[in-house]
Amino acid sequence: MSSLPPLSLSILGVEPLDEFIKEIADFIHHMIISRPDLPGKVEVEAKIGLLRERNGGRLLLPVLVETILRPDTVDCRFESNMTAAQHKHFNTLLNNLKTSSQRGSPLDYAHLYLVDSFHASGGNEREKIRVTRDEKTDAVVEVMKKIRLGDLNIYSPKRCADWRVSVNLEVPVALPTDPATHTRRKDRMKYMHEEFSIDLTQVTSTNSNGVSSEILHELEVEISRPELLLATAAKRGDINAPENERNAFDELIRAFVNNARILVRNANDSWH
Amino acid sequence: MSSLPPLSLSILGVEPLDEFIKEIADFIHHMIISRPDLPGKVEVEAKIGLLRERNGGRLLLPVLVETILRPDTVDCRFESNMTAAQHKHFNTLLNNLKTSSQRGSPLDYAHLYLVDSFHASGGNEREKIRVTRDEKTDAVVEVMKKIRLGDLNIYSPKRCADWRVSVNLEVPVALPTDPATHTRRKDRMKYMHEEFSIDLTQVTSTNSNGVSSEILHELEVEISRPELLLATAAKRGDINAPENERNAFDELIRAFVNNARILVRNANDSWH
Repeated sequence: MSSLPPLSLSILGVEPLDEFIKEIADFIHHMIISRPDLPGKVEVEAKIGLLRERNGGRLLLPVLVETILRPDTVDCRFESNMTAAQHKHFNTLLNNLKTSSQRGSPLDYAHLYLVDSFHASGGNEREKIRVTRDEKTDAVVEVMKKIRLGDLNIYSPKRCADWRVSVNLEVPVALPTDPATHTRRKDRMKYMHEEFSIDLTQVTSTNSNGVSSEILHELEVEISRPELLLATAAKRGDINAPENERNAFDELIRAFVNNARILVRNANDSWH
Repeated sequence: MSSLPPLSLSILGVEPLDEFIKEIADFIHHMIISRPDLPGKVEVEAKIGLLRERNGGRLLLPVLVETILRPDTVDCRFESNMTAAQHKHFNTLLNNLKTSSQRGSPLDYAHLYLVDSFHASGGNEREKIRVTRDEKTDAVVEVMKKIRLGDLNIYSPKRCADWRVSVNLEVPVALPTDPATHTRRKDRMKYMHEEFSIDLTQVTSTNSNGVSSEILHELEVEISRPELLLATAAKRGDINAPENERNAFDELIRAFVNNARILVRNANDSWH
């Protein structure tokens, strides 16, 4: 009696479209096609952290499952941080994945030690120039201005963490001559899997007096190749493109969302 | 450049579990195993309608995609009704599906004309006895008390309609001798597909003075075989059961949710 005859996915024979993933893809696509006309890399990343109300407590909304907040309607801030114990937990999890051979594509790994210094950008206090150097060799890795295009906050009431999707434009600029207003040191474990990199970073901030003020533990998933992202975005839904090219952007975002979700669901309760 | 190499579903090689469908399945399962110990049929249905705030407007929450409301935290009511035009739209859609041969399993169809009369149940005003008769033959089809076990409201901000999952226990009782407090006539088009029935019903209510007071248009999806539902629920997650039996309950609920979603997404904007 408990044996169920094979079921169709639905009366239409298909699974209804995943509304959540489509919303994220539409958002990222809109940010890309409406971005300022400046040379630079489009960065798409998902940060794992906590949505906090102004009083500091975790955001509480009357819903039972993961959902996307409507921008500018909820008074909260996103905190991209976790405890050292949680950081260790993810480190173990990702290291296990790296050495496990049963998981399909291999994970590559790099341990990076970087120093960012921030400099005023022509009198504009908000638009800072970021210079990234290799800590050991002092070689300049990157000089750029990061322009925020948009964010979506994802509330995840069943899990120990929330997440945020951010789209930024990283515009390369000349090495600044002004002194740094502050610096931060990044001890980053970078796990690379197919088109994504997962960065587990300990960030130590230092103000202009050289006083270490804060240590943060960050976890983010990033789309590795901005040029692939833009190329797939350009072909999205193009009826003249072959089907695989037309769908490539949505496939890329689907795997991106899946990876962010898997990290969030593996957050354990030593988050706070 | 826009050609994307084949991607794994995620760093774990799998799609993360659908949190939404699991929440609905957990809820229905909990209602089933914690139900009162009375003989009767467990009814699981999804009604398509609108979540309204007390002022009558549609519920507005600061989220972008379909989500499940936490019970008893949002002051709203669910209205199981639609316009006659919307009713016609679904009728056309389901009729097309019935005659289309490309959709896998066929849809069966029945047009039912039923009359429900409601009677007091031993002094208890809230627990009414419902007698259902065939309108043409006056034959009694069913006599029962419906006990509400629980509801989940689904808010669907991208669509023209919301939905509600209800679990009830229908307990058979003796034909009452008290007069009816009110009656309603149901003109129902019943579409049957595999383990589900989709009922598109025009309900005309009449009070005890015989005055027709209200016409409602309802749409609901129901799990057709309560005995199958209970049998699969009993085996859910049972490590001693074969895998297909262990997963049958969740498969059944997945198709149930898919069907409800497909109806909601086909609601057009003549809803109000």
